[in-house]
Amino acid sequence: MTDPHHGAAAPADPAEGGSAASGVSRRSLLGFGGAGLAALAAGFAGGLGTGRATAAPAAPAPASDVVPFHGTHQAGIATRAQDRLHFATFDLTTTSRDDLVDLLQRWTVAAERMTRGLPAGELGPVSGPYEAPPDDTGEAQELSAANLTITFGFGPSLFDDRFGLADRRPALLEDLPHFPGDMLEDARTGGDLAVQACADDPQVAVHAIRNLARIAFGTAQVRWSQLGYGRTSRTSQAQATPRNLFGFKDGTANILAEDAAALDEHVWVAGADDPDAAWLAGGSYLVARRIRMNIETWDRGSLHEQETIIGRTKGSGAPLSGGKEGTEPDFARQGNGGQPLIDPASHVAMAHPDANGGVRMLRRGYNYTDGSDGLGRLDAGLFFLAFVRNPATHYVPMQNALAKNDLLSEYLRHTGSGLWAVPPGTRDGGWVGQALFDS
Amino acid sequence: MTDPHHGAAAPADPAEGGSAASGVSRRSLLGFGGAGLAALAAGFAGGLGTGRATAAPAAPAPASDVVPFHGTHQAGIATRAQDRLHFATFDLTTTSRDDLVDLLQRWTVAAERMTRGLPAGELGPVSGPYEAPPDDTGEAQELSAANLTITFGFGPSLFDDRFGLADRRPALLEDLPHFPGDMLEDARTGGDLAVQACADDPQVAVHAIRNLARIAFGTAQVRWSQLGYGRTSRTSQAQATPRNLFGFKDGTANILAEDAAALDEHVWVAGADDPDAAWLAGGSYLVARRIRMNIETWDRGSLHEQETIIGRTKGSGAPLSGGKEGTEPDFARQGNGGQPLIDPASHVAMAHPDANGGVRMLRRGYNYTDGSDGLGRLDAGLFFLAFVRNPATHYVPMQNALAKNDLLSEYLRHTGSGLWAVPPGTRDGGWVGQALFDS
Repeated sequence: MTDPHHGAAAPADPAEGGSAASGVSRRSLLGFGGAGLAALAAGFAGGLGTGRATAAPAAPAPASDVVPFHGTHQAGIATRAQDRLHFATFDLTTTSRDDLVDLLQRWTVAAERMTRGLPAGELGPVSGPYEAPPDDTGEAQELSAANLTITFGFGPSLFDDRFGLADRRPALLEDLPHFPGDMLEDARTGGDLAVQACADDPQVAVHAIRNLARIAFGTAQVRWSQLGYGRTSRTSQAQATPRNLFGFKDGTANILAEDAAALDEHVWVAGADDPDAAWLAGGSYLVARRIRMNIETWDRGSLHEQETIIGRTKGSGAPLSGGKEGTEPDFARQGNGGQPLIDPASHVAMAHPDANGGVRMLRRGYNYTDGSDGLGRLDAGLFFLAFVRNPATHYVPMQNALAKNDLLSEYLRHTGSGLWAVPPGTRDGGWVGQALFDS
Repeated sequence: MTDPHHGAAAPADPAEGGSAASGVSRRSLLGFGGAGLAALAAGFAGGLGTGRATAAPAAPAPASDVVPFHGTHQAGIATRAQDRLHFATFDLTTTSRDDLVDLLQRWTVAAERMTRGLPAGELGPVSGPYEAPPDDTGEAQELSAANLTITFGFGPSLFDDRFGLADRRPALLEDLPHFPGDMLEDARTGGDLAVQACADDPQVAVHAIRNLARIAFGTAQVRWSQLGYGRTSRTSQAQATPRNLFGFKDGTANILAEDAAALDEHVWVAGADDPDAAWLAGGSYLVARRIRMNIETWDRGSLHEQETIIGRTKGSGAPLSGGKEGTEPDFARQGNGGQPLIDPASHVAMAHPDANGGVRMLRRGYNYTDGSDGLGRLDAGLFFLAFVRNPATHYVPMQNALAKNDLLSEYLRHTGSGLWAVPPGTRDGGWVGQALFDS
């Protein structure tokens, strides 16, 4: 039964059953094995192909770049923003509630494994039955966990009549309204499920989405996906404020991961928020907007014009009312001519909590560049991601105001959009969204 | 003349002329200032707006992550491959030879500066006349040089009748032939000029292309561009072999930066190669191919099938004839059944120098993922980049053979393409392609 192709490896005899998996670096620590293992066992019982084990199991990832998957809240929200993003939304191709539950269970197992730097499945890319597809695609074999986080969300469409979830839909979970100037593309908007994969290595983030898509085959398929780089928001005291593609610091006043009070007030859904959707307590709402920037037009604007539009200096990021980056903007302060130093229609003024009923968001967006369009312009901009406790108070009014009056809006075009309810975190042996399906 | 918007900065008086530039961290070391400075001086003379200097010039990049721009050959070829790519091609919108020369001169100055971690222009993103567009877009302000290299190429179309270059066209510089299975998109193919920007930070690579596009405004515009991540070839003894999106190690047998003899034989054009195009001596030819991978189909293939197609193991990357990754494949070695252990139609067999007249390429490609298509499939694959001394011997025959017979070709779709002559390197005060334009 030795495979003639593998002189250098030590093939395992499939008659030994589970021994084919013995070369795998670690077994899952979760309390259940998922459908994959059962199918594998059936495969062995039926004499499926030739098993083999690898000589060199992958080294476990260093603990220092592993973000725990399980917790009160899902990881990837109040987590220091990683450098790279692969975001994807999925539409279900099944109408079976059991299939959906099975998918969420299998996704949970795979996501938890990948965030530890392990292959998506227990056998991994190069072990397991030689005549079966590997349960990991293999392009992350030598890469570390790279602080991978995988965050799942449920779109409004999931709560239609397909899965018996209509009466559990959170009242706030409905498609975002049309905002002035919206030029949304259907192929970049919505989705039954959303998955945000963030990591410090793009290949790790892409590997995660790709393997979740592979696992979903027959149950759900990718609706659209978006890569991002160069996070655009400061999300932790340990981070400097990065720059967006307009060259300005962005996210100076963001909610930081360390600010538990602000997270409780503005990000995490409380049990009392929506008694009919208690399953969402400890979760949040994710707003995604693909915002293309008119880079070439912007680059021809003067420094004066650019700073007036943003309301901050391009160098230090200080508000135009003076001080340094962290200084609170003084919207009343006037210059020599009696005009406010910060234009009331500037981005910093329009987006400030003072202009928005005191609400704040946890922004976690990324720059994107998707090549160029047919007119020689870069297709580049901001993939805006924000987590809020209540989209109706924390996002919609502000975006309406920005779209109407923000000086910056002339340089922006919203081409994609979505809103998802982000269930709370999981514990060992649990799965994402479990409370939604519990009777 | 103090700008009322900038209490924290120390504005420079434009009446002092050049002093507005005194806050810039470094002056260019090049022997000429380019058109930008002259225009700036004219702007000051005419009282253009309010000048200002920043209080905090950007820190110079650490020498350890700067790749010298000048040299016998252009950087970015026999340079250890960086992790990220932004590749762009440009079409000229002028028919003036002087405009083209001026563009190449301005590009040289800007590229040399950016590879040192400096802004594209002498004034930078936040200095200079307040009423003029900055000469750098600013999103790389706090980022290091990140080993940025910028490599320029000239396409066949540059040698048409627009610029008086027809009689200097290298005989080998013509559009690649149609290969079996090619599904090239016009919007991803060709271009008068090509620019390969590689860096270890994607924002640095994108910043470089974007600023070159900005500088080209009115002379040339982006035809198409492509981002890449996760280099797919080992290019230096110091690098491990990375994995492509099929999960296999790729580029094991690549020409390494340290192998001067192989570079001379297979990569650098010699003066005697084409006496009518002596200007190209010390240069090379760049072949680009955007190769979409049918990821989802591949992921459903068995490990056996995948390894047979590639001809190597998916784990260590050893040839199926045995040994380890670096072991030379033994195409004659047979297994128990008398069949060769490496399928003659496998990728490793088809692409091996033994099957291609002994020729070798310097591959320097990147993985790409450009979201997904309308059918729920990832638009992902390999952006193949190779530098060769002679495309007619070192690329075309092999690609013809691969396209016809390689088992892997079933999983690939070539969607973009291009060939450019890459002029030799520059010295201080020189500019890219100078010898082409010398009479």
